[in-house]
Amino acid sequence: MLRVALLGAGRIGQVHAKSMTANADSRLVAVADAHAEAAQALAARIGAEAKTVDEILGDTGIDAVLIATSTDTHSDLIQRAVAAGKAVLCEKPVDLSLERALATLKAADDAGRPVMIGFNRRFDPNFAALKAAFDGGEIGKGELLSITSFDPAPPPLEYVKVSGGLFRDMMIHDFDMACWIFGGPPARITATGSAMVDPEIGAAGDVDTAVVTMLWEDGRIAVIKNSRRAGYGYDQRIELLGAGGLLAAKNVLENTVEKITAEGAVSAKPVHFFLERYMRAYEDEWTAFVEALKSGADMPVTLREGVAALACAEAATRSARTGETAAVTPAMLGA
Amino acid sequence: MLRVALLGAGRIGQVHAKSMTANADSRLVAVADAHAEAAQALAARIGAEAKTVDEILGDTGIDAVLIATSTDTHSDLIQRAVAAGKAVLCEKPVDLSLERALATLKAADDAGRPVMIGFNRRFDPNFAALKAAFDGGEIGKGELLSITSFDPAPPPLEYVKVSGGLFRDMMIHDFDMACWIFGGPPARITATGSAMVDPEIGAAGDVDTAVVTMLWEDGRIAVIKNSRRAGYGYDQRIELLGAGGLLAAKNVLENTVEKITAEGAVSAKPVHFFLERYMRAYEDEWTAFVEALKSGADMPVTLREGVAALACAEAATRSARTGETAAVTPAMLGA
Amino acid sequence: MLRVALLGAGRIGQVHAKSMTANADSRLVAVADAHAEAAQALAARIGAEAKTVDEILGDTGIDAVLIATSTDTHSDLIQRAVAAGKAVLCEKPVDLSLERALATLKAADDAGRPVMIGFNRRFDPNFAALKAAFDGGEIGKGELLSITSFDPAPPPLEYVKVSGGLFRDMMIHDFDMACWIFGGPPARITATGSAMVDPEIGAAGDVDTAVVTMLWEDGRIAVIKNSRRAGYGYDQRIELLGAGGLLAAKNVLENTVEKITAEGAVSAKPVHFFLERYMRAYEDEWTAFVEALKSGADMPVTLREGVAALACAEAATRSARTGETAAVTPAMLGA
Amino acid sequence: MLRVALLGAGRIGQVHAKSMTANADSRLVAVADAHAEAAQALAARIGAEAKTVDEILGDTGIDAVLIATSTDTHSDLIQRAVAAGKAVLCEKPVDLSLERALATLKAADDAGRPVMIGFNRRFDPNFAALKAAFDGGEIGKGELLSITSFDPAPPPLEYVKVSGGLFRDMMIHDFDMACWIFGGPPARITATGSAMVDPEIGAAGDVDTAVVTMLWEDGRIAVIKNSRRAGYGYDQRIELLGAGGLLAAKNVLENTVEKITAEGAVSAKPVHFFLERYMRAYEDEWTAFVEALKSGADMPVTLREGVAALACAEAATRSARTGETAAVTPAMLGA
Repeated sequence: MLRVALLGAGRIGQVHAKSMTANADSRLVAVADAHAEAAQALAARIGAEAKTVDEILGDTGIDAVLIATSTDTHSDLIQRAVAAGKAVLCEKPVDLSLERALATLKAADDAGRPVMIGFNRRFDPNFAALKAAFDGGEIGKGELLSITSFDPAPPPLEYVKVSGGLFRDMMIHDFDMACWIFGGPPARITATGSAMVDPEIGAAGDVDTAVVTMLWEDGRIAVIKNSRRAGYGYDQRIELLGAGGLLAAKNVLENTVEKITAEGAVSAKPVHFFLERYMRAYEDEWTAFVEALKSGADMPVTLREGVAALACAEAATRSARTGETAAVTPAMLGA
Repeated sequence: MLRVALLGAGRIGQVHAKSMTANADSRLVAVADAHAEAAQALAARIGAEAKTVDEILGDTGIDAVLIATSTDTHSDLIQRAVAAGKAVLCEKPVDLSLERALATLKAADDAGRPVMIGFNRRFDPNFAALKAAFDGGEIGKGELLSITSFDPAPPPLEYVKVSGGLFRDMMIHDFDMACWIFGGPPARITATGSAMVDPEIGAAGDVDTAVVTMLWEDGRIAVIKNSRRAGYGYDQRIELLGAGGLLAAKNVLENTVEKITAEGAVSAKPVHFFLERYMRAYEDEWTAFVEALKSGADMPVTLREGVAALACAEAATRSARTGETAAVTPAMLGA
Repeated sequence: MLRVALLGAGRIGQVHAKSMTANADSRLVAVADAHAEAAQALAARIGAEAKTVDEILGDTGIDAVLIATSTDTHSDLIQRAVAAGKAVLCEKPVDLSLERALATLKAADDAGRPVMIGFNRRFDPNFAALKAAFDGGEIGKGELLSITSFDPAPPPLEYVKVSGGLFRDMMIHDFDMACWIFGGPPARITATGSAMVDPEIGAAGDVDTAVVTMLWEDGRIAVIKNSRRAGYGYDQRIELLGAGGLLAAKNVLENTVEKITAEGAVSAKPVHFFLERYMRAYEDEWTAFVEALKSGADMPVTLREGVAALACAEAATRSARTGETAAVTPAMLGA
Repeated sequence: MLRVALLGAGRIGQVHAKSMTANADSRLVAVADAHAEAAQALAARIGAEAKTVDEILGDTGIDAVLIATSTDTHSDLIQRAVAAGKAVLCEKPVDLSLERALATLKAADDAGRPVMIGFNRRFDPNFAALKAAFDGGEIGKGELLSITSFDPAPPPLEYVKVSGGLFRDMMIHDFDMACWIFGGPPARITATGSAMVDPEIGAAGDVDTAVVTMLWEDGRIAVIKNSRRAGYGYDQRIELLGAGGLLAAKNVLENTVEKITAEGAVSAKPVHFFLERYMRAYEDEWTAFVEALKSGADMPVTLREGVAALACAEAATRSARTGETAAVTPAMLGA
C-alpha cells in the first residue's frame, strides 16, 4: 500500500483526490494547500489530514506526492520532493521557463527519484486505442499526424496574461501527444497564430487560434490546430495517416441519440468540458503511476518528456513571432 | 441518511452494492445471501454486516431493502419486506408467474409501502435522452416504436430451462421500455419466434430469436426484435417514428477510433456486455430510488409497471404458441 | 442492338425512357400511352415514334417492351406481349389480384418468353452491396432480417382507394427484398397495421403504419416496418443479423456536410423522394434486363418472384384483418 | 443554343465531352487534339467533327471552347481563344509559370472575353453545401479552415518531374478552395513538406506529403494537408471553425453498408478516384459556365482566381524551400 499526499486542493487537485482514494493500492493520507482551509475541507471529506508542504516532505511515511499546485511552483516542489526522496506525479506543464524545467530535470536525475508528468490525454481510452493500433502496425509507418484541440471558451483574460501563452498553456498537451505518438520530439517547428476569438487576447500579446507544423528528421510531419473557442463544446481529435491507411480518434458526444426531422439529422453535442471528457483518463493516469511505482517500471510519462513538450512550446512561440521555422535543439531537450 | 440492506450477494448484487455504497444519501449496513459465505465476503469488503433475511426484515433500523436474489424468491421477499415496513427496490422480473405477481401487487398496495422494480435501462443516459426528447415534443405524437435488443451470447442451457422463456427473461426489459415510452401497456400483442441460434434451446421449448408487435388502442405500434446472440457484442437500440420525425438511440461502442484501409473503414465494436453498457444506469437507478424515498415522490418504476411488463411477456408467450394475436386484458394488469 | 418500346409515358415511364436511351445496347424506337399526346411529347423528345400498343405488339422489329402503364393493365399487357413474342420488363406489382397474376404467370410460362418485374430496389448500390456481402458468407447464416421503409408523405386519398392497400402497393417492394435476400418466400406472415398518419386512410379501409413479420420454414424471421410518412424524407434501410454478425444498409443523405453548434451536430436530411434515391437503380435495372436478354441468362427478377411478392401482400392483408397468422401456400405461389 | 468546341480529347477531355453533350443549352460541334486520331475517335462517338485548333478558333460559328489540353499549352490557347472572340473554360492550372499566367490574365482582360478556370471541386455538392451554409451565416465569422486532400496513389515519376511540384499540381485545388471559402487570397503562406511516400519523388526535388498554413490580413487561418497516397482511396474533406460552430464536409463512401462482427464495425471505403467522386461536379461546372454565358453574369471561377491559386502555390513552393513564411503580394495577384 502506497502512502501518498496531495499538494494543491483546487479544482484539479480535487479531481486527483477522487482517483487517489478510489485506487486500492494507494492511500491518500495528507493534503496541503496554500489556503489552509481548502486543504482542511478536502482532507475532512476524504478522511486524510491537512498538513503543510514541509510536514509532508518531512514525513518519511509518505512515499509519493501529487503536485497539483499553480504552475509557477512546479519546478521548486518537484526539486524539493525528489530531494526528500518522494516519487512525484506533477501536473503539466513542468514550468513556463524551459531553463528552470531543465534545471529540475537535472535535479531529478541527480536525486534518482521517479517523476511523472500528468499528461492525462495519453490515458484517454480513445487516444490510447489509436496509439495501440498504430504501435501494433495496423497502418504501417506513420507519415502525417493531425491533432485538433479546441476548448469550449477562452479562459479569463487575467489567466491568459500569466498563462505563458497558448503554446505553453494549451498546446503543450498536443505537443506531448505528437511526441508520444511519433516516439520523440521533432527537429523543427513552424507556428502561425492570431487573435480571432478575442482581440483583448491579442492585445495581451497572445493568440487564441493557432496552427503549428512539426517536422521530424526523417520527414514525418505533424500539424496541430488549436482554438480557445469551439462554442459547441470540447473538441479533441487525432488523425494519423500511415503508409497503410488512416487512424482517427473522433470526438466524444454526450449521448448516442439522433433526431431526424425536416431540418436534418441532429446528434448530441460533444461533452462540454475537459472534466467530463477526461475523468476516466485521470483515474487511469493515477493507476499507471501507482503500477509503475509498484513494479519499478519506467514512468509512463517521464519528466524528460515533459521538458520536450515545453521545448516544442518554446520553439512554437519563437516561430509565431518571427515567421521563421524554429529548431528544437538537443540543448533544449536537456540532451 | 437512509439505512439499507442488500438481499442477494451474487453478480448483480455486487453491482448494486457498488452504487449503494457510493451514494451519499444511503448507507449499506447489511447483506444477506442464501450462501452465508457470499454474504460475509461482500459485507467484509464494503464494511457492512452479514445477516440473515429474517434479521434484516426484523431490524427496525433498516429503511429499505434491495432484492437481488433469484427470480423465484422475488414475490415472497417483496411481500415479506413490505409487511415489515421496508421500502423495496427489486430486480426484474417481479415473478415468472403473472398470478403470483398480481398477488404481490395486491400485498404491496395493502401494505402501502413503496416498491420499485429494477428496470435499469430506463436510466441509461441514451435511452433517457430519447425519452426526454420525445416527452419534450420534439417529434410530435409517437407512431411506430422499434426496439432492437441482442445479447452477445445465449445463457447456459440449464439457465434457459428455468428462465421462464425469452419473453419473460430477456424481452421483459423491452416490454417495459415500450410501455414506458408510450405511457402504458398495449391492447394486443403478436409474437413470432424460433430457435435459430441453438436447436437445443428449441428442444427445451424456448426460442432464441423473436419479433413481437404491440398495438395500442389508439393505433400506435411497437415492434421488438430479440436475439440471444449478436456475436459482435451487446446491441441495444431504440427508434421512434413520430408525426414530426424520428428519434434514434444508437448502440454504444468501445471507443471512437476508426481505421480506414483498403479493406474499408473499421470502427470499434459495441461494448460487449450489459455491465459495461449499463454500469452508469445502475448507479442512476439507485440514486433515483433514494431520491424518491427522500422526497416521497412516486417510485420511478412502479410495481404495477413491473406487472405490466410481465403481462406483456405472458401475452407474447401465448401468441408465439398459437399464432394468434393475444389481448393484454385489464385483469392481467391488476386493474 | 435490342429494339425496344415503352408502354406508358407517365412519370415512371419517363424515368425508364432515360435509361433506355442511355443504354448502348438498346434502342428505344416507340412509345405508346393511353393519352396519345403524352406518347407524342415523349417520343419527340427522345427521337422515337409514338405508336399504339397494337402497332408496337404487331411490329416484329421490336424485341422487347417495358410496361409502365397503370397497374390494372399489367396482366393483360404482359399476356399480350409474350403472346406477340416480346420480352417484357413490367413495373411492379404484377397485378393487384393474385388470381390474375397467377394466370399471367401461366401464360408467360406457356409462351416461353422472358418476363422481368421491375423491383428497382434490388439494383440500389447499397442494397446490392448488402446482398453481395451476405451471399459471400460475410456474416454466415441469416437469422433475422429487418426492413425499414418509410415514404416522405402519403399519396392522395384518391390514389390510396384504388391502390390495393399498403401491403400490395407499398410493402410489395419490401416483400420482394425479403424473399430476394432469403432466397425464396416465407411460410407464414403476421401483420399489424393502423391508420396513424391520416384517419381518412383508415376510413377508406387501409392502414398507413404497419409491421409485418415473416417466418420461413427453417425458422428465419424477417420484419418489415412501413409508414406512409417519415416527414424528414425517404427512409429505406435494411439490417440482417446472421450467425457471425450484422449487415446494415443505411439511409442515403443529401450530402456529407455536418454542422456542429451549441444546439448539437446537424447532418443533412435523407434524400427526399424515390426518384433521387433510386435513379441509379433504374439505370442498373434496365442494364441488367438488356444483359440478360443478350446472354440468354435468367431474368434478374422473374415473374414468379413478382407473384411471390404479391402472395405475401395477400397473406399480410388477410392477417391484418383477422389478427391471425396467415400461411403462404404453394398454390398462392403458382407451384 | 451555345455552339462549343473541345480542345483536348484525352482522359479529362472525354469527361468534359460527356457533360457538354448532356447539357441542353450547349452543342458540342468540334473536337481538336494533338493526336488527330484521338480527336476523330471522340468526335465520331459523340456526333461532332474532328478539327484542328486553328479551324476551331477561326470558325465564327463557335461561341466557346473548353481547353483540356496539357498544362503547358493553357496560356497560349487561352490567349489565342480570347483573341478569336471565344469564351473559354480552361482546365486548372492556368499555367505552371506565374509570370505567363499574369500575361494571360492581362490578355484576357484586354480582349474582354470571359474566361473560367475549371476548379471542379467548387461544384462538388458537399463542398458547395458547406460554402452555402457558411455564406448563409450558419456558423458566423470564419476563423480556422482545414482542408484534407489525399490522393489514392502518387502519379508516375515521369509525371511528377514535369508537374511543377505538389504545390502547383495537386495543392492548387486546395488553394483555390481556401481562397474561395474565405473570399480572397491570403497575405502570407508557410509550407512544410517531405518525401515520405516515395524517396524518388524527393530525389526529383519534389515532396509527396505537405502541410501549408495560410494567414489572412485579418487573422483568419487556413491549413491544407496533402498526401500523394492515402491507400484507402480518395480523401477529400473540409472543416471550417467559425465563431458560432463548425462546418465539416466529410468524405464520400462507396455505399452505406456497414458490417459489424467481433472484429469491429466495417463501413465501405471512400470512392477510389477523382472521377467517381467528382463526376457530378464536372457536370455542374459545365452547366454553371453555360448559365453564366447565357445570362452575362460573371464567370463562376474567374481567370484572376486561377492566377491567385497559382500565386499561393508559388509562395508555398518558396516557403517550403526556405523555411520562412512567404508573402502573397499584390503583384503576384496581378493587382
